Order: sequence, then structure tokens, then C-alpha cells
Amino acid sequence: MKLASFSHAGTATWGLVGDGFVTEAGTLRARFPDLKSLIAAGAVAQAAQADGARIPFAEITWLPVIPNPDKILCIGLNYETHRKETGRSEVENPTVFTRFPNSQTGHLAPLLRPKVSTDFDFEGELAVIIGTSCRHVSRDDAFAQVAGYACYNDGSVRDWQRHTHQFTPGKNFPETGPFGPWMVTPDEVGALDDLRLQTRVNGQVVQDARLGQMIFDIPRQIEYCSTFTRLEPGDVIATGTPGGVGAKRTPPLWLKPGDVVEVEIDRVGLLRNPVADES
Amino acid sequence: MKLASFSHAGTATWGLVGDGFVTEAGTLRARFPDLKSLIAAGAVAQAAQADGARIPFAEITWLPVIPNPDKILCIGLNYETHRKETGRSEVENPTVFTRFPNSQTGHLAPLLRPKVSTDFDFEGELAVIIGTSCRHVSRDDAFAQVAGYACYNDGSVRDWQRHTHQFTPGKNFPETGPFGPWMVTPDEVGALDDLRLQTRVNGQVVQDARLGQMIFDIPRQIEYCSTFTRLEPGDVIATGTPGGVGAKRTPPLWLKPGDVVEVEIDRVGLLRNPVADES
Repeated sequence: MKLASFSHAGTATWGLVGDGFVTEAGTLRARFPDLKSLIAAGAVAQAAQADGARIPFAEITWLPVIPNPDKILCIGLNYETHRKETGRSEVENPTVFTRFPNSQTGHLAPLLRPKVSTDFDFEGELAVIIGTSCRHVSRDDAFAQVAGYACYNDGSVRDWQRHTHQFTPGKNFPETGPFGPWMVTPDEVGALDDLRLQTRVNGQVVQDARLGQMIFDIPRQIEYCSTFTRLEPGDVIATGTPGGVGAKRTPPLWLKPGDVVEVEIDRVGLLRNPVADES
Repeated sequence: MKLASFSHAGTATWGLVGDGFVTEAGTLRARFPDLKSLIAAGAVAQAAQADGARIPFAEITWLPVIPNPDKILCIGLNYETHRKETGRSEVENPTVFTRFPNSQTGHLAPLLRPKVSTDFDFEGELAVIIGTSCRHVSRDDAFAQVAGYACYNDGSVRDWQRHTHQFTPGKNFPETGPFGPWMVTPDEVGALDDLRLQTRVNGQVVQDARLGQMIFDIPRQIEYCSTFTRLEPGDVIATGTPGGVGAKRTPPLWLKPGDVVEVEIDRVGLLRNPVADES
């Protein structure tokens, strides 16, 4: 099952994704006003009964899959190819920084290059959407806490990321975090390790990896994060980006207005965003 | 004016703080269910018309001043005495990390030492509560965006903070961020620079500074943060801690169950929390 958040005729809603169309939540919306509340109620399976209008993709505005997560945890330096290109040492625990929900945006929406910088970079990633309220989760129980998967672009303003040792400023500019187009439930994704993650800029492949190449796998990420915080339904873990980021190329490949960035993951989706300047 | 969030008879609410009692919001609650919504409506002055029950302090449970902020931005290494004790270099921009709202707790509530660590430390701070939705704020306009001030204890699990270069894990354990007892409006606080910030553990002074000793002052913090994110009403900026933290003492002074930590700031308040172990 694929589920999406979108707006249509000026109303933010959610629905079930079909082949070129979405079926709006319909009567389910009274009980579950958004995907987060559907997930929190343990009612994802009920989305199959969505009975709203059938709307072609062309008529909707895609929103971030979870527009209002309580938390977005981002795992840094989680592919060996990326760790090496940054020159960082190996570590025993995941590197965790955060994004605020208002830094996100949806599929096809402009990826906004801020006024204050031209060092604007992509980071294609798999996002995990948490399905339960959970703490102290063991590796063995970790996948049972997952509601679904989606593509994420952890858009980064590199000079602001490097102002100090803490990444927060460079990772939180408005509309720099595309998340979508939809989430796919685990049963439909199946085994993750062999799935290919690709990022393309104007059709050119810039990142290319298998999800099995993560240094800290998803169970370890959930185990670690749930030790220091209670995870809640709709929380997002952006699981890290592989090598190939623009900042580490010679010369650097910075995103500029008119570019198109795609993050594609087998069986998960294709997230596409044009780059535009902050107005 | 002083405003507090609290629960009474099982209901979370807010009110106006008097001398030893609070006046519950009363009929104002229908329009403003919590302090964040009161602030967002630009209606803080209306809190003077709170007409609910007059409840002695002893009968309420203090909640974090803003239990549900969209963002908590923490400024690191913002007093020279603390920067020096950590051995960090001088930087041109504020260091910004984040806490999640579920890491907060209220005045008098237990400050929870997690199961996984004994390296549990205090950080007394002034918190700024944002009053408007604002972006690209200039230094000159910064104080106009402030709804109030409060005491904050940025409780830190030092080994988890140092697992990697990103501080997130050590700064987000549940119930490690006391925030209160109340917020004070700027007119009542007046000029900030000479106000004394003290942290005490079991009555012993461990941190002692004037707010004017901040490296990056409040206008600069608001200018900087509002460049990379839109600030919203109820957002919290924890403005940094002075020298004297437990981790940098010889031997280290770690918080243990039974200890009492106080953060006191002239004209702002006295925040007191007993330390307890996570059960």
C-alpha cells in the first residue's frame, strides 16, 4: 500500500496512491485527519477503505509524506563512501542531527536555494516512518516499529552547516527537505538490502548505492535513537546519504535554479524537485 | 506579568502567576487552550483577565512553560568561561543544536538520570520565548519578537553527547530539560545584561554569571536563527550556559538521585528540580 499527503482544491488531506491517481481518504478523514493520526491509531490497513474522490496526480499538490512529524532524526555519515569523502573517522554509534518539520517540502515542489548561500547540496536518502510509540527498542523488535518507507532529500546549505561543529543551521532552511512522493508499507517494499538508491541532477547520476551498504542498519538506528528519546508515530528517521555529494566533487557541484534533483529508490518511489531561488 | 503552564485536577491548563498562587485561565481557555496559542494570537496582555480558580502553588503540577514548542534551539558555548573549559575555538557564528519537546519537564518535577549513563550534568540557562512568526529579523527588530523569558536547565548526558561530533543524543533524553517555573514578560524583566544567572547543586553555587556575558547576545541569536529557519510563536531559544558544568570539574560533578538542582535568574525566576533515576 502507498499513502500520500497532498492538498487538493485548497485542502490538505491524504489518500491511497493508485496508478496515476490518488483516492482521497473520504469518510476516513473524520477519524484520521492526517497520515500521522492514521498511523498513531494503528489504522494504516484501514486506508484500503479510502472512499473519497479519485484525483489524477496532475491535479494534486504533493505535501511532505508526514507534514507534521514530532521529530525528524537524521543519521549522518552512514555510508562508507560518504564517510570517506568527508574525511571523518569511524565511530561506534550513529551520528544524529535533526531537521524541523518546517524545513520539509513535497514531491515536485521547488527545492529552495536560500538567499544567503550558493553552497546548496543534495543528499538522497531512505526515510523510515515510525509506526508506534516506543522506547528502548531492541534490534529484534525494530522493524515492528516501522510504518513505512519513503524517499528523502536532505538538502544541505554547506557553508551554514560548517559555521560550527553542529550541523543544525545548514540542515534547516525552509523548503530544503523534499520527502515523498508517498510512503510505502513494509509488506510492499520487502527486503531492503538490495534496493538501489540513486540521486540524479538533471538526469546525471550523482549518488548510487544499495541500502545494504549503510554502516548502521535500520534496526541499529531504531535501537540507538529509542534509547535517548521516545519515538512516536509519524516520526521520521532519514537514514543517511551515500558518497557523491556535490560539496566533495572537484569542482563542487552546487545546485542552482533550474536544476532538477531526483532521488529514486527501488520499490519505494521517485522524488523529483526543481531547484528555485528563495524569493 | 508571569504566565505558567500547569496541570490541576488532571487537566493541563495555564494561568497568571500571583504571589504563591496561580489564577487559572478560566473563560480565556476556550479561545487560547495553551500558552502557545495565547502567544500566537498576540494576546498575552489579555492574560491579565484570567478569571479561573485561584489555586495555591502547592496544588498544581508545573509543566514546561511551553509544553509544545515547534522548535527548541539551543545555543552552545555562548559564555567565554564555558567555551574555555571545553577547549573549543572561538567561532564567528552561534553554535546551534536542538532539543525535542518531549525532553522537557516542569519546575519541581524529577530531572531524570537515564539508565544508560551516570555522566549526567546540569546547564543553567536563560530561555527566550518567541512571540511572533518571523524570518530574516534584524538585530534592531529582534527584541520585538520576544514574548518572554524563563529559566532553563539544559540537562546533558555527556557520554552520549560525545558519541559523535553531533550533540543530539546527549541533549534529548526524556525529562532532562526543566523549563520554568513560568515565563516573565519583557516589561517586567527590563534590562538583561546585569541580571545574575546562578546554578546551584544541593545549595552549592556551581555556575554564576551575568547575562551580559553572553558571547552572542539575544539580538544576534534571533538574527542568526531567523536566517535559517522561520521562528514561530512559542519557539524557545536556550541561550547557552556559563562555565562551571559538572563535566569539566576535577573530579567531575555528576548529578545523582537525591540531588537538587536550582537555576535562578534575577527577576526571571527560580527553577528547582530533584534528580531521580529513570525507573
